[in-house]
Amino acid sequence: MNDDAVIRATFSKQELMRTLGASLGAVAPGGVEIVLPWRPELGQQGGLLHAGAIASVADSACGLAALTLMDEGAGVVSVEFKLNLLAPARGERFAARARVVRAGRTLTIAAADVFAIDGGTETIVATMLGTMISRKGRA
Amino acid sequence: MNDDAVIRATFSKQELMRTLGASLGAVAPGGVEIVLPWRPELGQQGGLLHAGAIASVADSACGLAALTLMDEGAGVVSVEFKLNLLAPARGERFAARARVVRAGRTLTIAAADVFAIDGGTETIVATMLGTMISRKGRA
Amino acid sequence: MNDDAVIRATFSKQELMRTLGASLGAVAPGGVEIVLPWRPELGQQGGLLHAGAIASVADSACGLAALTLMDEGAGVVSVEFKLNLLAPARGERFAARARVVRAGRTLTIAAADVFAIDGGTETIVATMLGTMISRKGRA
Amino acid sequence: MNDDAVIRATFSKQELMRTLGASLGAVAPGGVEIVLPWRPELGQQGGLLHAGAIASVADSACGLAALTLMDEGAGVVSVEFKLNLLAPARGERFAARARVVRAGRTLTIAAADVFAIDGGTETIVATMLGTMISRKGRA
Repeated sequence: MNDDAVIRATFSKQELMRTLGASLGAVAPGGVEIVLPWRPELGQQGGLLHAGAIASVADSACGLAALTLMDEGAGVVSVEFKLNLLAPARGERFAARARVVRAGRTLTIAAADVFAIDGGTETIVATMLGTMISRKGRA
Repeated sequence: MNDDAVIRATFSKQELMRTLGASLGAVAPGGVEIVLPWRPELGQQGGLLHAGAIASVADSACGLAALTLMDEGAGVVSVEFKLNLLAPARGERFAARARVVRAGRTLTIAAADVFAIDGGTETIVATMLGTMISRKGRA
Repeated sequence: MNDDAVIRATFSKQELMRTLGASLGAVAPGGVEIVLPWRPELGQQGGLLHAGAIASVADSACGLAALTLMDEGAGVVSVEFKLNLLAPARGERFAARARVVRAGRTLTIAAADVFAIDGGTETIVATMLGTMISRKGRA
Repeated sequence: MNDDAVIRATFSKQELMRTLGASLGAVAPGGVEIVLPWRPELGQQGGLLHAGAIASVADSACGLAALTLMDEGAGVVSVEFKLNLLAPARGERFAARARVVRAGRTLTIAAADVFAIDGGTETIVATMLGTMISRKGRA
């Protein structure tokens, strides 16, 4: 198990999150939220949030959710993930909420839903299902 | 069919590509390459290229490859994609090379390989398989 | 919307379900269950339920769940799906329970969990995330 | 590395392959082919080969292709796979041809294309990308 401090330290080392403008939200055993405010710099050709930005925060959230349940001192790396886009990604900000589906010794399966938040309304815009691997002694 | 100019115009409207520092490489019917120079601002916690940055360029390359074979005036949107990470993403720059696997009237299946390029050596670091949809009159 | 009778008629035309020994369980708008009793004829090399059999019932359940919310007279075809195996698939019988994640005019995203049932205990053994397409007038 | 005899012995223990009527074709280091003759008993509601049958032979082919490159005495289990359906699966028989994309100590990434064969013509009908894990001493 890795506590809040380990998760926050790992997140803060993910330079891409800073580049995108993402911040870490709630952290709990088996669950992590990442928040991404909308900026035109994150857009695709139609002015929606680019699927790659959605994948970035969903993948980080899945990895960190997996890390909460891994042994101390372990590092987490993504093996693979699948992202389904469900609705146009338009909003003031976005929240990727990941949860562990199954934690194993080596592999952890995690899922994340990504929501667009606009004026207090939340709409699911994407869902991810992915596989993470624990690397011992690579924290 | 959409020619080089349409693909380049679409790419240039993808603000996330500019934010990441990606540029469009070769464009051919059914195939597109996107190049991404390494910068620490794109890293994950271990100093490798973040899987989200890999997904971003692979997804854009798949979408644009699909667009080359779609009707003029059509727009392309990602339905879903799966990314497998194959090796540590470390290099001077990265190239996402996408090809259309099957072009249909509504849906196009595309695949992309992502390579790390370092001192003239190329190593495959990830592979994507995804589904794109054509939106008529949404160029 | 398609009612219980349409779903049962569609299921009964899926000869593979009969070959595997699967039967249709509960049907509700947006949700379908398929039950598969264990038989050694469905095994992989280690005597567990083969991942292909798991995929078969999960895919059928996802497709039929999507069909419950499609227009009358429409047919449903799988575009793609991803299956994660979560635990050894060993039990007296298995239940694939699918739900619609998002129903669109053309595409429907569905998810299914597959459970092993043994002496009254249920264990999740796999989870699927997939995309289904509606084919008008192809019921 | 596991030779032809090990692959054939493993395939012959997969009872589902026998139930579907599949047979093992060519085997080479990093590549395996499985052949599935069409029978109405394998159909979906429209009389095409059910996506679950396609997934079954593609998954077995990916797993066995991975096994060819694993250590002797190792067993192979599927972690996850994604299948894209590309064209109506109609033919006299089908061939799933898998190849290893990347072989690692623990995880192997494999891909398979599935072809419909009809009167000497081959058409690709599906493609799979999956992750396999080596279980030591579980041959």
